[in-house]
Amino acid sequence: MADQYAQSSEDKRPTEIPVLRWEEPPEGPVLVLLDQTRLPGEEVELVCTDAPALVEAIRSLAVRGAPLLGIAGAYGVALAAARGFDVEEAARALEGARPTAVNLSVGVGRAEAAYRTALASTGDPTVAATAALTAARTLHREDAEASARMAAHGLALLDELLPGGGQRILTHCNSGSLVSGGEGTAFAVALAVHREGRLRRLWVDETRPLLQGARLTAYEAARHGMAYTLLTDNAAGSLFAAGDVDAVLIGADRIAADGSVANKVGSYPLAVLARYHHVPFIVVAPVTTVDPQTPDGASIEVEQRPGYEVTEVTAPQVSVTGAGGGIPVAPLGTQAYNPAFDVTPPELVTAIVTEEGAVSPVTTEALAELCARSRQATTS
Amino acid sequence: MADQYAQSSEDKRPTEIPVLRWEEPPEGPVLVLLDQTRLPGEEVELVCTDAPALVEAIRSLAVRGAPLLGIAGAYGVALAAARGFDVEEAARALEGARPTAVNLSVGVGRAEAAYRTALASTGDPTVAATAALTAARTLHREDAEASARMAAHGLALLDELLPGGGQRILTHCNSGSLVSGGEGTAFAVALAVHREGRLRRLWVDETRPLLQGARLTAYEAARHGMAYTLLTDNAAGSLFAAGDVDAVLIGADRIAADGSVANKVGSYPLAVLARYHHVPFIVVAPVTTVDPQTPDGASIEVEQRPGYEVTEVTAPQVSVTGAGGGIPVAPLGTQAYNPAFDVTPPELVTAIVTEEGAVSPVTTEALAELCARSRQATTS
Repeated sequence: MADQYAQSSEDKRPTEIPVLRWEEPPEGPVLVLLDQTRLPGEEVELVCTDAPALVEAIRSLAVRGAPLLGIAGAYGVALAAARGFDVEEAARALEGARPTAVNLSVGVGRAEAAYRTALASTGDPTVAATAALTAARTLHREDAEASARMAAHGLALLDELLPGGGQRILTHCNSGSLVSGGEGTAFAVALAVHREGRLRRLWVDETRPLLQGARLTAYEAARHGMAYTLLTDNAAGSLFAAGDVDAVLIGADRIAADGSVANKVGSYPLAVLARYHHVPFIVVAPVTTVDPQTPDGASIEVEQRPGYEVTEVTAPQVSVTGAGGGIPVAPLGTQAYNPAFDVTPPELVTAIVTEEGAVSPVTTEALAELCARSRQATTS
Repeated sequence: MADQYAQSSEDKRPTEIPVLRWEEPPEGPVLVLLDQTRLPGEEVELVCTDAPALVEAIRSLAVRGAPLLGIAGAYGVALAAARGFDVEEAARALEGARPTAVNLSVGVGRAEAAYRTALASTGDPTVAATAALTAARTLHREDAEASARMAAHGLALLDELLPGGGQRILTHCNSGSLVSGGEGTAFAVALAVHREGRLRRLWVDETRPLLQGARLTAYEAARHGMAYTLLTDNAAGSLFAAGDVDAVLIGADRIAADGSVANKVGSYPLAVLARYHHVPFIVVAPVTTVDPQTPDGASIEVEQRPGYEVTEVTAPQVSVTGAGGGIPVAPLGTQAYNPAFDVTPPELVTAIVTEEGAVSPVTTEALAELCARSRQATTS
C-alpha cells in the first residue's frame, strides 16, 4: 500500500478511525474518506476517484473540519494530477467547495504549487503528480505534529489559568481526530487533560443543526474513555450559571488578522456567556487558520447554508422524507436563517493556542508576530 | 355541546386550533386535547376520560405551556369530580405531573377549592362537580382575557422602548394559542405588533431538545401570516451581533418573588446576549406565574428531563428506534444534561409584562405591588 504516512504513524494514532487515507489499487489512485455524516451509527467509507467526488464530499460535510479540509484538498490536487485530470480546474473547484475554510485553499495551494514547480522544472506530469502527493503527505504529517504541539501548549495554558486541578471543559462542534491529520485542535487539548488524569468533565454541545457534537465529539470522547456529557447548545447557559464550566475550548475555521475568530455557529454565544461568567474562552487552531489577508471580523465571509438543515432533522438511518433528505420538523414553507459560522471578536477571546504557542491577550501585533515566527520556522 | 365558553368566544379566537375543550358526550364528560407532540405534521386529538390520562398527557408534553397547564389541571379536577373519582387523589397526581409549573398547581387548587367548598356547603357531589367545572371554565375565560391584556400592555411597552417603527422580535419556545386559553403570552404581544403592521420579522428559535419553536411557534406564525424565520438556538448570537434583533420576548414558567424567571432552557443565554448587545429582554406572563412562596432564583426547582430527549431526535412521523422512541443521534450509552428550564436573574430582565401591567425595572417591591393589585382586582 502506498500510504506510507498512515503506516508509519500508526503508533501515534489514538484510535483506529479511518479518517482519510491515500490508496493506490491497481485501477488507479484513490482518496478514501470516512463519511462523517453517517457517524456514529455507521462507519462508511467514501472512495473518491476524482476531484468532483471530493468536492461533493466536502460540500456534504462527509469530510469536514478546518485542518482535515486542507489535507483533503491537497490530496485532491494530487489525485487530479495522478489521474491526469486538469489540475488547475480541480484546484479551483476544491477551493470553492467551502469558501469560509481558509485551510482548504491553503492545502490546495500547497499541492498545486508543488505540482507547478515540478512541472516547470522537469516538464514531466508524472514527476509533478508525485510532487503534489508528497506535498499532501507532508501537510498531513505536519498537521499531526501540529496537533501534538497544540495539545502541549493548551495543556500548559490551562495549568496556568486553572491551577486548581480537575477541569470541566465545555466544547462546541467537533475538533478531534475527525478533523485532523492528528488528534485535532481543541479536542486534542481536552484529550491531553484527560491523559493527565485531570479531566473532571467534557461538556459536549450537540451543535445544531448538523449535530457534530452529538454525533462526532461524543463518539471520539467515548472511544477515548473520557468523562463526557452531552447537552443541547442552549443548556450551556445553565452550566455557566451553576459554575460548572472551568474553560471553553473551541477550534476555528478562520482567524482574521485582528484575532476575530470564525467558528461553527454557536461559538460566539459561548464567548459572551464565558465573558459574563469570567470563564476563559480559548481558541485552539493551527497557525494556517490565521489569514493575514482578512483584516477583521467584518471581512470574514460567512457561508449561509440551506434552510432545510434547520427545518429538517438529518437522520441517515431512516428513509428520507423532506426536500433536504431529512425529517421535516417545521411547517412546510418555513424559511430558515442558517449561517454556518459566527464571528467572535478578539476582546472575547482569552487566548489563541497554536502549534507555535499561545497568544494572550489576542492582539493584531501578537498574532502577526506569531505568524512571522511560524513562517520563519517553516522556511528555516 | 356543553362547552359554552368555546362557543361564545369563537369570534375572539384567531385560529381554529382545537387546543383544549370540555365535551359531554352521552358516555360521560371528557377533556379533549390537541396532541402537541404531533404538530406540525398532524393534528391529532387526545380524549381524556380520567385524570391519569391527563397526567400522562401533561408528562408527555401533549399539553404544555404554563397557562394552558393551569386550565388543563382545573378541568382535570372537574373531570375526576364529574366521573365520581377521588378528587383529592386526582388533584395530587395532576399537581405532581410537572413540578416546575406553578400554574398547574394553581389551576388544580382553584377547581379543588371550588369542589370542596360546594361539597361542604351542600353535601352533594354533583353540585360540587359542577362547581369545579365552573371554576375551570372561569379560569379558561380569565386566561383568554389576560392574554388580550398582556398583548395590549406589551404593545405599549414596545412602543415606548422602540419608538422607531418596524420591529424585529426574537422569541424562544412556544407561547401562543397552544399554551393558553387565549392568544398566549409573548407570542400574543408579537401578534399584536403584527396586527399593527409593524412586525418586520419574528425570529423563531427552534428550541431544542423538543423543538417547540420549529414545530409550534412556526406553525402558529404561519397560520397568522406573520413574517417569521426559523433559526437554531445557537444562531441567535449572529443575529444580535448583526444588530438584527430589536427585542427579545419570552414567556415564563415560574417567576420568583425577586423577579428571577424560570423559562424554557435557552432563555438565560438569550438574556445574557441581549444585555451584551443592549437589546430589551422582556418576559410576558400572567400574574399567576409569580410565586411569592419562591423567594429567589436559587429556590426554583429545575426539572431534569430524560437524557434521550438530547441523545435522540423526536420525529413522530417515523418508526421508533431508540430507547426514548426517537432517532439516536449520539453514541449508545451517551449521558446527557437536560434541564427543562433555566433561570434568568432579575437584573437581566428589562421588564415583566402581565395582564395587570408591566414591571420595569424588575424589583421584589414592584412585583409584590403588582401581585397585591392583582389580588385586589380578583377579590373586588
